[in-house]
This record gives sequence, structure tokens and C-alpha cells, in this order.
Amino acid sequence: MDKSKKGYFFEDYHLGQVIDHAVPRTLTDGDKAIYQSLYPVRYPIYSSEEFAKNCGLVGSPLDNLIVFNTIFGKSVPDISLNAIANLGYAECRFFKPVYPGQSLSARSEIIGLKENSNGESGIVWVRTFGINELEEIILTFVRWVIVRKSLIGGIKGKTFIPKLAKSIDSTDLIIPDSLNYKNYDYTQSGEKFGLFDYKVGERIDHVDRVTISESEHMMATRLWQNTAKVHFDITARTDGRRLVYGGHIISMGRALSFNGLANAQIILGINSGVHSNPCFASDTIEAWSEILELTELNNKQFGALRLRLVVQKAEATSFSLFDVCGGYDQNVLLDMDYWALVPI
Amino acid sequence: MDKSKKGYFFEDYHLGQVIDHAVPRTLTDGDKAIYQSLYPVRYPIYSSEEFAKNCGLVGSPLDNLIVFNTIFGKSVPDISLNAIANLGYAECRFFKPVYPGQSLSARSEIIGLKENSNGESGIVWVRTFGINELEEIILTFVRWVIVRKSLIGGIKGKTFIPKLAKSIDSTDLIIPDSLNYKNYDYTQSGEKFGLFDYKVGERIDHVDRVTISESEHMMATRLWQNTAKVHFDITARTDGRRLVYGGHIISMGRALSFNGLANAQIILGINSGVHSNPCFASDTIEAWSEILELTELNNKQFGALRLRLVVQKAEATSFSLFDVCGGYDQNVLLDMDYWALVPI
Amino acid sequence: MDKSKKGYFFEDYHLGQVIDHAVPRTLTDGDKAIYQSLYPVRYPIYSSEEFAKNCGLVGSPLDNLIVFNTIFGKSVPDISLNAIANLGYAECRFFKPVYPGQSLSARSEIIGLKENSNGESGIVWVRTFGINELEEIILTFVRWVIVRKSLIGGIKGKTFIPKLAKSIDSTDLIIPDSLNYKNYDYTQSGEKFGLFDYKVGERIDHVDRVTISESEHMMATRLWQNTAKVHFDITARTDGRRLVYGGHIISMGRALSFNGLANAQIILGINSGVHSNPCFASDTIEAWSEILELTELNNKQFGALRLRLVVQKAEATSFSLFDVCGGYDQNVLLDMDYWALVPI
Repeated sequence: MDKSKKGYFFEDYHLGQVIDHAVPRTLTDGDKAIYQSLYPVRYPIYSSEEFAKNCGLVGSPLDNLIVFNTIFGKSVPDISLNAIANLGYAECRFFKPVYPGQSLSARSEIIGLKENSNGESGIVWVRTFGINELEEIILTFVRWVIVRKSLIGGIKGKTFIPKLAKSIDSTDLIIPDSLNYKNYDYTQSGEKFGLFDYKVGERIDHVDRVTISESEHMMATRLWQNTAKVHFDITARTDGRRLVYGGHIISMGRALSFNGLANAQIILGINSGVHSNPCFASDTIEAWSEILELTELNNKQFGALRLRLVVQKAEATSFSLFDVCGGYDQNVLLDMDYWALVPI
Repeated sequence: MDKSKKGYFFEDYHLGQVIDHAVPRTLTDGDKAIYQSLYPVRYPIYSSEEFAKNCGLVGSPLDNLIVFNTIFGKSVPDISLNAIANLGYAECRFFKPVYPGQSLSARSEIIGLKENSNGESGIVWVRTFGINELEEIILTFVRWVIVRKSLIGGIKGKTFIPKLAKSIDSTDLIIPDSLNYKNYDYTQSGEKFGLFDYKVGERIDHVDRVTISESEHMMATRLWQNTAKVHFDITARTDGRRLVYGGHIISMGRALSFNGLANAQIILGINSGVHSNPCFASDTIEAWSEILELTELNNKQFGALRLRLVVQKAEATSFSLFDVCGGYDQNVLLDMDYWALVPI
Repeated sequence: MDKSKKGYFFEDYHLGQVIDHAVPRTLTDGDKAIYQSLYPVRYPIYSSEEFAKNCGLVGSPLDNLIVFNTIFGKSVPDISLNAIANLGYAECRFFKPVYPGQSLSARSEIIGLKENSNGESGIVWVRTFGINELEEIILTFVRWVIVRKSLIGGIKGKTFIPKLAKSIDSTDLIIPDSLNYKNYDYTQSGEKFGLFDYKVGERIDHVDRVTISESEHMMATRLWQNTAKVHFDITARTDGRRLVYGGHIISMGRALSFNGLANAQIILGINSGVHSNPCFASDTIEAWSEILELTELNNKQFGALRLRLVVQKAEATSFSLFDVCGGYDQNVLLDMDYWALVPI
């Protein structure tokens, strides 16, 4: 009997299937500190107990992307170990902050399936939930991936393509309980900009660049207990290179975007995300943002910015996105659309 | 007067000598998190407070190999700073779990000495103890190393070669106090296999591979406060390469072996270990295990698997071990024999 | 409107100007552990809760250089983002230990300005304060940097060059409250040397070497939230190399200097520091110290060593410092002058 797991193939999934992913994980101050050492993050709510308490929280929570990557990582062995590509994200919402000492586990439901015409693979849509030790849902997101079939040709199943929102409606965004920006300290956050200092269509060049290094992306990816071979093993791809995990690019881009969006500290939801090109160690990357939408959320305290975050290579021209054929520019690595909370 | 230590030489040791090693160390959640970022570890007892509590423990302890490496590291300045080679381990037993916040120190006793016929070096056998802040022994192991003589030729001491058990008797294995697998959650651990799902002689290919990187092995080795020059300094070896610390290979191999041995979470003892070939950054490694022995430990709850863990380079053939001459295959890096606790 | 910060230029500063730096930071056991993994630190007060308590402290504090680097990092976006060079440090004093869980912020005052004769840049002297969450000053230091002018030529401001002490008077050194070396454990610290075992002029070769790696210096620099581009971005310098942050060299040199100065655990002040040559990944470095001064501090328990710490490349001759022209030898990276507390 073969004890080690080789991952699931397209035929192993069925609509409505629920998978409880293995290995719960307690996140701690240690994870927070490593995240600080791997990404140039500076949002003070996640950096300082006092700043967070001054905003009404019980302490400094874990960055949204620590939570997202942890839950994503748990789903990898059951969803994307044999994935050919991670096609996209949608409908990611954060329900509650997660604090050091809390334990997370993940559950997924198969919500869509479509065999590819080549008969070699299919697309699997999956809604994944992050759950804390109190059995509260703290996060949900949808992703879809191309998964290999175990038997080329084989029986063709039913096709179901789920309807996904292009963007989360701002009325569905959840402000963390007890959060309060009345005494928000703009000196400590480093910038004075609130909701109405931004305008739709405005683009922000985040200036700083980072040259990606091999150990760092592997350490991040391991921290999320993500086991996908291509990130660790130079024999797993024909080009002999380790592919940088997409979540590393999201975290790096988001951290770089502090410069100009310092008060957009809390991510409320991710509307979509595309890893448009692969990234490898020694690539130098930079980020820019565009304000897609802005809205007041409640009682004059909170607003939400809908932001496009683009991560591109240093060799790209400023504010790159699409090429002349309408596809992504070859130097664009990430195009993400998300909601962030800002003070008004 | 020369203030800095140059390490001990063969002549500096005598039988029965006891050495209290310097620099006690408090291990924390920070060390746990770094271990997670350096190795693809997923054993849930070490990953989740809730899983550990559900198994009757007061919380999630530190991985056995964090404890082993910490104690090993403390012994390096006094035992192996001038070692030519680390020949082997034996009789390693874990007495108690170690929890974040506990402080460890190390003590060694010289239990064997034998000068080599070339007159340039000798073998030193040493039994090392790990001790917590309550003065409880939490670990012991024997290792033996070839140590340079300070004076080539010189006086030849008495020879004493200690008798070491080839394998720890299963009745001498210590199950952590209060551990209870009655409510063991096989969904959370990720595999359904208990003691009797394995059979003696069975071999498990753990599938995943890791390409070793320079920063990671140095960070691990520093975490254990191991000061052996060859791991950090490219001028310390004639080939200009940094030798990867053997404990890094043990930890990496053990983490990889999760896939197929997810329920073998707790190491009870290490019977022997041989670093058969050196490892350097850019080597890609993989692991396989063989079931050497299996035994019930008590009241129908716990069993122990005696496992051979082999770490080999990716270019080796599957399940490599020995070459035609009976020596280790040149691509085999580690051959370790250990006891792990499993549910029945 | 341009949202992202490009940093200040020489003209943006005026004498007496006070800048509250952004992003308070709570330091934790996680930061401590990462520091352990990046530097071969072994001072037991910072390594062990029990050792620290045995010395009268409430627990094991954060290494002085974690505190120094954290405060330095906070000042970078406002002081040295456009700096051409960091010329030196002076008058650095540590007022109180910082413990895991405490939050630090930084404030700077401009205490000197001098435009360079080329009209392209000027020197800015700044006194920076580290402040804990109780609004207590825990650290102060002066540094001076060459900063670009935004307008070459332009208006020439007043010149004021502050008077800085060549060395902090030993009577101004502050011993941490409640510290007590009566039960100091020389076995645990690893060396038996107290104040009077050293003599002025004595030089100590710290023996060990480290080859610098790219990921490690970037991780350290990010941990301090230091955003200076040259450390992360290979496009930021014309030579395509990432410059190693000077604080990384200070921390590495200080950690190496444990060997021979194990009881000089606590830094009381830094008199001066010069980064005499740049360091890049793949450089192998080593350290030596010279005893510049020694003094009793109080009641027969504490002494202070005034130490020169020199970090040099492995290719330098032993105890390198100056070349024949009186400038720093090209292989000398750091010349630091500091006070360390030692038992008598």
C-alpha cells in the first residue's frame, strides 16, 4: 500500500464535495516577526500593540495576508498539488481579525468543475473557508485552478461554472468589531491621507523595489505549510528554477504599497487576483496602485478604497498592465483588485 | 593572555570528565515559527495548540528536533569545534516534552576515548544531557567524533570504547506524561494510518524534494547556537564551500517524511544516525523511510514504529542506501534509525 | 497629488526641527528568535530567562542592538532615504532594558547642518530618541549623514556643527535598574573573565568568520523596518549590488566578539562608529577587539570596558585598521568604540 499522498486529480472531485484540510496551525508572535522580516510591512495596526489598542482592538492582530496565506496553504495538498495553474481568486472576505495564539484550520467546497477540451485537465472552482479555534469563520475565498486528469480522455463529467461576483458589494464588507478610528494617529501611521484625499482613477507609484531572493520566498511558503513542489525543488520544473509562490508576490506588493497607502491598513476583501506571469529569484519587482472606487462605510468614521494593486518587474515601463494585444504585459506579475479600510 | 576559545583537542579530554556547556537558552514561539519557516514540518501536535490539548498535553510542545539540535549546539564549542568528523549518534532518548518558555542547558560526560593509529587524532565518545530550568533531564544522547590532537604523536592515553545499544529497547521508550490518543483526529493529522497499517520491511517514498539554500541552513544552525566554523565560513574548508550542518539534514528529512508518516508525530528515541556524505547548498534532497520494527507500547492506545530514515540526493536511484562495495551510496546523506510514537 | 514619499532633501531640514517618526513597533520573542537565527549571538542574559532573572532582571531583555536597529530603522524614511552616506554615530546611550512585548517609537531632532562646498549636498546631524510605550526614553544616539539637495546650488542655509563627545564619560553610563551580578554564573556565560582580567591595549582576535548571504542581511534590515532602497534593490546602485546595511555588520561583529568577551553582555553606550568600507553578500568577515579603557562603575559589582570593535574582511591581515596613508584599510568595514558592562 502506498502511504504517501500524490495529490488529487480532476476526476477525484465532485460538485458539492467538502474537504476538511489537514494540519491546524496556531499562529503566534513568531509568525508575525518572520512576516516582518520577509516583507517590508509597516502598517502600524499590525506592527504595534498600542496603535491597535488605540483603534479599539484587543491587541495587534495578524496581517490579513498571513491569515489568507495560512488558509491557502492548508488547501494546497488537497486542491492544487497537481495543479497546472492557479487561474484566479474571487469573493475573498475577511470576517474577523485573527490574533497571535489563535489556531486556524481550513475547509473547502467544490463549487464548479469543467473539463478542458484537450481531455488532459479540467478547471476546479473551490470555495475555501478559514476557521478559528472557536469554529468561527474568519475568512472565505474562491479560487479556481487547472488540475491534471489521472486518465487522459476518460469519462467526462458534468460541467458547472459558478457565478462569481466581479467585485464584493461594499455593503457586504465587514468592519472588525470594536474597531474605532476616532483617535487615529496620522503621525504614527506616517501619512495624513483619508478616504477623500484619494480620487477614482488616481494612480500611485509606490517607488520602492525589491530583488527577490531564493531563501526568502521558500521560508514564506513553508510558513504557510504550502507543499507545492515547484516552489522548493529545482527538479520539479523543466527549466530548473524554483517558481516563486504567488502569495509571496501578493504580500510583497501589498507591503510595498504602504508608501502612499499607509492608512489603508486593513484588507476587507479581495475581489480578484491574477498571477499574470511567473516570478523567479533575482527578479526585481515594484508595485503601483490605482483607486478603482471609494465609498463611505458608516457613521463618518470609515471608508473603503477599492484598489487595483499591480506588481511588475523593474524593467517594465511605469504603470504597466496590458500589452497591445490586450493580454497582460510580460513584465506584469500580479493584478489584484481589493477593498481596504481607510479612515475618513 | 589569549581570551578567545580555540576549542578542545583530543588530549584535553579524560574518561568520566563532566562538562557543563555554556549559554542556557529559552526556547519560545519564535523558535517554533522559524523552524516552521525552515522545514516543511506539519505534524499537528507541534503545529496546533488545540490538537496538542486534544491529545492531553498542556499545549503544543517544541518539535523533538528543535530540542535535540539546541542541546547538540550547546555541546559544539566544548566537543566538536576541532572535530574532523561527527561519526555517529546512539541511545538518544527523549524524557519529557519541552514547551515554549522553557530554558535548556546541556551537560556532557566523556564516556570513551581511543587514539587513532596515525597519532594525529582520536575518537571521543560523549554522552550529552539536555536539562530544563527545573533541572529535569529532558533528553540524552551519545555521539562520537574524531578530534584533532594538539600535539601530533604526544602521549598516548588509555583506550576505552563504550558499549552502546544498537537500538533502544522498546520498553525503555518514554511516552510523554498525560498524552492521550483517545480522541486522535485523523482528519486533522491528514492520514488515517495507525501502527498496524504499517508492516516491517515496508518502504515509503516521501515524494517531495527540497533544494538546499545557503541562508536557510545557516539560520537553522545559528538558531541552535552551533558555532562550528565550516557551516558559516567559506574560508574554513579547502573547497570554499559551506558544509551544511548535519542537523539540518535530519530536520529536513524528518519534515519531508510527514508524507506517509503523518501520525508518527513524536520521536521517542534515536537509535543511530550516520551522516554518510556531505551536503552543500544547491543540492536537491529527498527522503524515504523503511519500517524496521513495530510494537505496541501500552493499553491499546500507543504503538512505536522503528524507522529507518534515509535522505538522499535527487540524482540517486529510488531507495538508495549502499553501493556495491557495501559502503553508503555516494548520494546518500543520512541513514537514521529512530523510534516514533503512533496511534494504534 | 503625489501620495508616496520620496524622502527629505537637505533643504527640508532646519536646526531644532523635531520629527516624530512613523510606525511604532512592538518587539516580541519572535524578533528575539530571528535575531538568534541571523547572528551567532550567545550572551546568556539575552538568551535565557533564568540567567537574566538570576541577574536581578524581570526577564530576558532584547539585545541592545535589536533596540538600536529598531530605532535607527524608524528614522530612515525621514532622515536617510536620500542619504549619500552615513558618516558616523556618537553619544549613543542606553537608558533602560527593553523586554518582549514592549512597543518602541522614535523621535529625532536636527542638531546640526552644513552645506557641502559642491552645492549638491549637505551634512545633517540628528539626535534620535527611542521611546517605549510608557513614554520613557530608552535610547538616544546622534548620527550624521550626507543628504542630497533637491536643488543643486540653491539657497545656502546657516551652518551649525554640533559639539559631540569623543567618548561618553563613564560616570554617565547607566546600569539597568535592579541588575545584580552577585550570583553571576561564569560557567553558564562560558568565560571566567571579569573587568580586571583585561588590560588596556589588549587585543582579542575573535577567531570565527561568517560569509555574508543576501537573504540574511535583507531579513535583518526589514525586521528594523528600514526602507533604504540600496539594501533590497539591485537597480538602486550602479554596480547592481545590494549594499549590506551597516547595522547588520555591527550586529554580526558584536555577535562574533562573544568569543573572548562573553561577560561583556550589556552595551551601555556607543561612543562612535564608522562604516569605513561597504560590505556585500559573499564577503567573509571577522572581528577583533581592543580594550581602550577600563573602569569600575560602582560598589565592586560592575565594571565597564571601553572597547574598539573592528570588523574586517577575511583577506585583511590580522588586526587591520589603517593603511599607510592614515585612512582605513580597504578591508576594514567597521570601527566602533563602545562601552560594555562587565562583572568585576
